[in-house]
Amino acid sequence: MMGLMMETESTLLITRGEVASLLGLAECIDAVEEAFRLHAEGMSLPPGVLETLTNDGGFHIKAAGLKLAGGSYYAAKVNGNFPLNPERFGLPTIQGVVMLCDAERGRPLALMDSMELTALRTAAATGVAAKYLARPDSKVATVCGCGVQGRVQLKALAEVLPIEKVYAFDTDAARAESFAHAMSDELGVEASAATDLRRAAGESDVCVTCTPSRQPLLMKGDVRPGTFVAGVGADNPLKQELDPRLMASAKIVVDILEQCAGIGDLHHALEAGAVTRADVYAELGEIVAGRKPGRASGEEVIIFDSTGTALQDVAAAAVVYEKALHAGVGVRLNLAG
Amino acid sequence: MMGLMMETESTLLITRGEVASLLGLAECIDAVEEAFRLHAEGMSLPPGVLETLTNDGGFHIKAAGLKLAGGSYYAAKVNGNFPLNPERFGLPTIQGVVMLCDAERGRPLALMDSMELTALRTAAATGVAAKYLARPDSKVATVCGCGVQGRVQLKALAEVLPIEKVYAFDTDAARAESFAHAMSDELGVEASAATDLRRAAGESDVCVTCTPSRQPLLMKGDVRPGTFVAGVGADNPLKQELDPRLMASAKIVVDILEQCAGIGDLHHALEAGAVTRADVYAELGEIVAGRKPGRASGEEVIIFDSTGTALQDVAAAAVVYEKALHAGVGVRLNLAG
Repeated sequence: MMGLMMETESTLLITRGEVASLLGLAECIDAVEEAFRLHAEGMSLPPGVLETLTNDGGFHIKAAGLKLAGGSYYAAKVNGNFPLNPERFGLPTIQGVVMLCDAERGRPLALMDSMELTALRTAAATGVAAKYLARPDSKVATVCGCGVQGRVQLKALAEVLPIEKVYAFDTDAARAESFAHAMSDELGVEASAATDLRRAAGESDVCVTCTPSRQPLLMKGDVRPGTFVAGVGADNPLKQELDPRLMASAKIVVDILEQCAGIGDLHHALEAGAVTRADVYAELGEIVAGRKPGRASGEEVIIFDSTGTALQDVAAAAVVYEKALHAGVGVRLNLAG
Repeated sequence: MMGLMMETESTLLITRGEVASLLGLAECIDAVEEAFRLHAEGMSLPPGVLETLTNDGGFHIKAAGLKLAGGSYYAAKVNGNFPLNPERFGLPTIQGVVMLCDAERGRPLALMDSMELTALRTAAATGVAAKYLARPDSKVATVCGCGVQGRVQLKALAEVLPIEKVYAFDTDAARAESFAHAMSDELGVEASAATDLRRAAGESDVCVTCTPSRQPLLMKGDVRPGTFVAGVGADNPLKQELDPRLMASAKIVVDILEQCAGIGDLHHALEAGAVTRADVYAELGEIVAGRKPGRASGEEVIIFDSTGTALQDVAAAAVVYEKALHAGVGVRLNLAG
């Protein structure tokens, strides 16, 4: 009786380490795929963003809801983003919390650290996009930006494609080297540090950019026909990784059109007049839901503009919550007591 | 050493009961006054709102930041609002959590239940507005809407004005009776249930409306010259308590112009064409900061349109957090661990 009361009234608190141990990349990819499908079918509480900029960084909140088999969920993620944190304070750039609620009653079900979840759900969207938009025989990948996100991105690609060879590019050459070492070991691929991004990209089937760049890194002509490009780094209006002319020459798929038009690489392509909104081929959900075909030929260059949506957050948070309940992981606290 | 690490890395969890015991109304009024002043002086991270509507209710997020003596704070409040909850599930209509962060590093400092904080910070804004905009000799108050918020509203008025006599009006007469009893006892005022709102309002120096009404309750001509009116209930585009013609005949002060134009009584007055944005005299912060005078004569009718802002949330959450730290209240959890 007490247990039941606890379960219906308390909030489950889940730490970063617990999230990491509970959330697998493969199941996160599945959950994110389902989230985009449900969104395209009108079964979501649509994703929204609330941004607050400060001198040294800022906060963003992303919120959305999904009606899933295990329940109707709403999640709000509050992330602080302070790029100078590591060097100034020894703190991570991004710190935050996801609050998961019952979408029909409003009750706070869980509060969980956002770091691992954000990393995995971001990579998972690339995995879903690659599954539908890359050539199924894609073997060679370039990863531009060899931070934490680069590693998860490559793992997500390797989940859905037969990746054999990897070019690792970073402005910090040592970081590219250590990335190549680690990924060779972990994924059993032939990974090497690349010093010439253009050449690496030109020999790849898949290119992922996941950097904090504010200028285009991949230009028109840098990729060969048939390439799938995921632009992952740009998630605020200042960031940019893809040349607007590269965008204009490719088939563009976005996570959420409004978000990409505001904060993605699409934003810069629109501002440059290189493309219009009507040039965007689809939102990812439309392809997952089968409303629009994915790749039409082995020759198309397809770009996935990924800004990171609350759909991914709520999908991943629901996986974590349901697995935590099942495994008895996390601390319960009756915040309303 | 361990203690220091805990303090710098963990998040403080504060329950509803702890918030209630820590947050006093008088200090909340002071904190909210300071928040509006700082906002007017450009010392805030400006308040924002992210709303998600569902079939039976919805979620809203309010977020803002303040640079205070004790630190730079950013708070995001995630509240579910499900009006059928009490009757359907025995749950409160509004449930939620406030996340308080270090605004310079992004670190989550505290997570606290939102219910008591929301009630007090809402009443506190009315207290601040009444302090500057009601006649200082205001003795008679009408409270329209005798729920939980009505009680705190009256307490806030009694903190700043020499209230002696109270008319309690509610569509549920029994609720007005019990309100009058309780408030007479608690505040030592002469409170009675009123059956005729118009008559009560016409004999009052101060009128507060705090109902879920979707039609105007107070009409032009219902209040006498010199009255201060606080419209507190309207916090979404459907809610309305004040006649647009009453608005047009009064001096209008808003909490935040954009919010009131979207979800306050101002919204309906604008839609009705009764007023324009230029007719709004001031935001509350401009008056608190001394940029515009408050009440200019004993004859003016002044309306405060209160939609509830994140400035109030962050101010109140900072008080709770600092007092909890000082008193050793709350549970610490290293969510990032």
